[in-house]
Amino acid sequence: MPLSPEQQAEIDAQRATPRQTLRAVSDGMERHLYRALPVLDHGFVRVIDYMGDDAAIVQAARVSYGAGTKHVSNDEGLIRYLMRHWHSTPFEMCEIKLHVKLPVFVARQWIRHRTANVNEYSARYSILDREFYIPAPDALAAQSTVNNQGRGAVLQGEEAERVLAMLKSDAAQMYDHYEAMLSDEGQQGLARELARMNLPMNIYTQWYWKTDLHNLFHFLRLRADEHAQYEIRVYADAIAAAVADWVPLAWKAFSDYRVGGVTLSAAAVDCLKRRLAGEVVTQANSGMSAREWREFEGEWG
Amino acid sequence: MPLSPEQQAEIDAQRATPRQTLRAVSDGMERHLYRALPVLDHGFVRVIDYMGDDAAIVQAARVSYGAGTKHVSNDEGLIRYLMRHWHSTPFEMCEIKLHVKLPVFVARQWIRHRTANVNEYSARYSILDREFYIPAPDALAAQSTVNNQGRGAVLQGEEAERVLAMLKSDAAQMYDHYEAMLSDEGQQGLARELARMNLPMNIYTQWYWKTDLHNLFHFLRLRADEHAQYEIRVYADAIAAAVADWVPLAWKAFSDYRVGGVTLSAAAVDCLKRRLAGEVVTQANSGMSAREWREFEGEWG
Amino acid sequence: MPLSPEQQAEIDAQRATPRQTLRAVSDGMERHLYRALPVLDHGFVRVIDYMGDDAAIVQAARVSYGAGTKHVSNDEGLIRYLMRHWHSTPFEMCEIKLHVKLPVFVARQWIRHRTANVNEYSARYSILDREFYIPAPDALAAQSTVNNQGRGAVLQGEEAERVLAMLKSDAAQMYDHYEAMLSDEGQQGLARELARMNLPMNIYTQWYWKTDLHNLFHFLRLRADEHAQYEIRVYADAIAAAVADWVPLAWKAFSDYRVGGVTLSAAAVDCLKRRLAGEVVTQANSGMSAREWREFEGEWG
Amino acid sequence: MPLSPEQQAEIDAQRATPRQTLRAVSDGMERHLYRALPVLDHGFVRVIDYMGDDAAIVQAARVSYGAGTKHVSNDEGLIRYLMRHWHSTPFEMCEIKLHVKLPVFVARQWIRHRTANVNEYSARYSILDREFYIPAPDALAAQSTVNNQGRGAVLQGEEAERVLAMLKSDAAQMYDHYEAMLSDEGQQGLARELARMNLPMNIYTQWYWKTDLHNLFHFLRLRADEHAQYEIRVYADAIAAAVADWVPLAWKAFSDYRVGGVTLSAAAVDCLKRRLAGEVVTQANSGMSAREWREFEGEWG
Repeated sequence: MPLSPEQQAEIDAQRATPRQTLRAVSDGMERHLYRALPVLDHGFVRVIDYMGDDAAIVQAARVSYGAGTKHVSNDEGLIRYLMRHWHSTPFEMCEIKLHVKLPVFVARQWIRHRTANVNEYSARYSILDREFYIPAPDALAAQSTVNNQGRGAVLQGEEAERVLAMLKSDAAQMYDHYEAMLSDEGQQGLARELARMNLPMNIYTQWYWKTDLHNLFHFLRLRADEHAQYEIRVYADAIAAAVADWVPLAWKAFSDYRVGGVTLSAAAVDCLKRRLAGEVVTQANSGMSAREWREFEGEWG
Repeated sequence: MPLSPEQQAEIDAQRATPRQTLRAVSDGMERHLYRALPVLDHGFVRVIDYMGDDAAIVQAARVSYGAGTKHVSNDEGLIRYLMRHWHSTPFEMCEIKLHVKLPVFVARQWIRHRTANVNEYSARYSILDREFYIPAPDALAAQSTVNNQGRGAVLQGEEAERVLAMLKSDAAQMYDHYEAMLSDEGQQGLARELARMNLPMNIYTQWYWKTDLHNLFHFLRLRADEHAQYEIRVYADAIAAAVADWVPLAWKAFSDYRVGGVTLSAAAVDCLKRRLAGEVVTQANSGMSAREWREFEGEWG
Repeated sequence: MPLSPEQQAEIDAQRATPRQTLRAVSDGMERHLYRALPVLDHGFVRVIDYMGDDAAIVQAARVSYGAGTKHVSNDEGLIRYLMRHWHSTPFEMCEIKLHVKLPVFVARQWIRHRTANVNEYSARYSILDREFYIPAPDALAAQSTVNNQGRGAVLQGEEAERVLAMLKSDAAQMYDHYEAMLSDEGQQGLARELARMNLPMNIYTQWYWKTDLHNLFHFLRLRADEHAQYEIRVYADAIAAAVADWVPLAWKAFSDYRVGGVTLSAAAVDCLKRRLAGEVVTQANSGMSAREWREFEGEWG
Repeated sequence: MPLSPEQQAEIDAQRATPRQTLRAVSDGMERHLYRALPVLDHGFVRVIDYMGDDAAIVQAARVSYGAGTKHVSNDEGLIRYLMRHWHSTPFEMCEIKLHVKLPVFVARQWIRHRTANVNEYSARYSILDREFYIPAPDALAAQSTVNNQGRGAVLQGEEAERVLAMLKSDAAQMYDHYEAMLSDEGQQGLARELARMNLPMNIYTQWYWKTDLHNLFHFLRLRADEHAQYEIRVYADAIAAAVADWVPLAWKAFSDYRVGGVTLSAAAVDCLKRRLAGEVVTQANSGMSAREWREFEGEWG
């Protein structure tokens, strides 16, 4: 359970008191506000605030005085045009603020996205909670034998049990020692900024994270991708679900042009055109390296 | 008049229909939404959207589940502490989106603030309006004789008349020629992306500009400053008025620590301490250059 | 002629005195240093400094102690892999600094690329030179009739002559008035920060512009593209020529995967697969809008 | 010892072969290139590359054709003026690239400086080394009793021994288990991207980190400060030593105006002026809160 009863009560209180505003409102997103979307065993994603909606993208692209166009169909056509031609600035006019609880090793990947605002819970100032990510059995995967940077089959039997037992007992022991070092009973008590160094990287941290829709799409394209590590992908998937409700037209365009899209090299374009003209193209006459050809065949057969 | 009746009608329509939201609401800022704060002769600043309020700064600094602290006095103390110690990330958790109409030479200074999102009206795609900044008589200043980068006394008499007449007739002529080159009556008509090059830099452009509160404060510190050019300072002043209503606690802290604050060099600290100890300090024994000493005396006598 | 004899002498002096360094050196780029690549009628691009080479990309990707790999072929394979899979951070490890002289209306497009460092010649502080961009006859194009944001056929005959005459005489007159307003002979003299507003946007400015290779590639992809305005594309082309000599392997990968590459939407992938399977696909059964289909047919027939 | 003999040999090889360049060269920085400045028990900072020198700052500020001014004294005056008046863009024209080996908990603070380029050693792709930060006895400090976010007296006697023993044995055990989980002898072997989660945050990682001089100064101002955690401050100090040799004039200006400088609030300016006029100012009549007054008295007595 990622939330304590007190935390849930605070969230309920925030959802209980709607107020009036003249700003753009996304009804789809209002339903998500403050609620915790559970991710992994103790993590979550909560939408804390948002700015703008689909019409705001159109309004900015047109530098207009009023709100969007008169017709949704026009808005959709323009949004798809902007996405198709990489006109990114209108998408930057929407903003989202999230509260995320996540393991440290996931946070270390996530923070590489620099165009964002972040406030992280400080382990110099406060004591971290005793919460660690322990993979579910079907997420406990072996090293991939073909990809240095990925995972393969799920671990089985005794090996899986050994690993899970190790992760659990190590986390428990490290946290016990963390508390023992911090304690000021009968001793001085180690500084929090030092004691934290003994904690393993599957401990949970939390942050407020704020970014614009263009940069969020970039994050989702890389992190909701099959090449991303599973433990960050599930966060990206949770965010994606909220975004689809927030800006449905932009989300649809993003899905068509980025998620489901494919980027071809000049050589790949050439090979496809030759195939369409009836030619039999093999790696030997493709102009691609063996590795590029393998990736090309993976997509096009 | 910066707005046409149609534009004013669109703004009135947007202000006429409040909606419900669960997000943080700043009542002070709601009063500003969409309205045009007039600046210079044809310009304006309009607040299009905002995210967060004073409590949101506190909430982010604490990475909290609920909204701010229980007591406003606690919020204020924390916000002042954050400002005093340059903890900038919580202020980044508030965001503002503006619609600005401004002369091109002002836009060229403004755009140097890179941490912002911008959509500018495109003179490749559209035809610019016939609107030019012509300084009011008291803004028509001579070159400063002491500061290479500033202005001095107001121009008087015939010289002022000559300059104003020149600015007005040149702008009119250049715009006439712009239209003549664009026209497709009896000729092909020059491309808009080329014709625009004949326009002078006091023509008005417009953009949507979005930034976070920390970067906005940085903008205001530099541009609402007496060293900034008058024509951008009046925009900064208009924005400052809206910010004071939006996040009054953060604004107060910013005013005390940045706007009204002073930064001392190591040498200046030393001189002040010696003075407080009763010593007579002159440039000769100050360790400062003549220029530094002049600036020091300007502040401290 | 973009350079005065004095300026050329300063450049020659800088090229005359090689020094020793332990840093990575790109012989291809050393040949470009300080030299002015002429662009348009009075503009140029000069490479002032650079950091890194192809091996530095590899070295950063591997976080290695020494320099690159032993074999160039390995370096090339890795660089192509990084480019293909959008691993952008190793390309950020190379940096370039340029001195550019360019018309103001081009500078206004260019500055939209925010991830760069810029120092522009200040017209508050200094007086601009009497140099304006006047298009060559074959660059004097009519408005496109199919693209709101582009140009069509070249202007002919009397219309071309009229436009050129107007651009020339307007520029001359505005500059005469600029000087007249600035003059302190027999009058106070208008402040430089005000007088500049009377100058048209084809006047030349200059700046130092510094960015990393990843962001430079992004700039080149957008600005060396056929959709970019001709007057900025020629600058992108000049920079591209220097980059090809600086980091030949990265340049080759960029050319294959970005410049010559194509991005397909999910619908376009589907259509191509159906065509490869022998199906006749038309707009009606493509799932694309008329506009998307037109762009698809433009590429694939 | 932070370096293996093989690594030291690679560094020696890079230092053995100077080459010719036409670029700006800083002799002070050449002496640092590639060498490892040891930090903490296993860490280091190595300067891998740099761009620019003091003259390059001046050259960019003037947008000049040649190199700097004729006289060093002029360069110094201009650099001090730029620093004093927060003209930051000329300092952005210098760039530095570092190779840093550092504990993960230090890396997590460091990465918060977003305006930088980073390539970190990947624990998804590779196996981390068995190296952990164990504080020296005089760095093993108790929690501060007055500052929630700092450390107090050094731990003594048995408590110190207990803590050190715990940190050492925990690190050893976690690394043993890391290896046991990774092993493919007689089992599948856990994926590297999962096994790493069991490692404590005092394990060492490495990265290439590149930033410009303005942002580096910002980093140093915050991280070489007494409020920064000791374990990151020692890295900032090592970098500062290299910067002082690289751009001595800029370093001197930074030391005088930022490091040794003091920022006063409006209230503090008022209090100092009243004191200089002979008035006795106490907290009661200062207009400051108790906390602000305490900080004021700490500086001014």
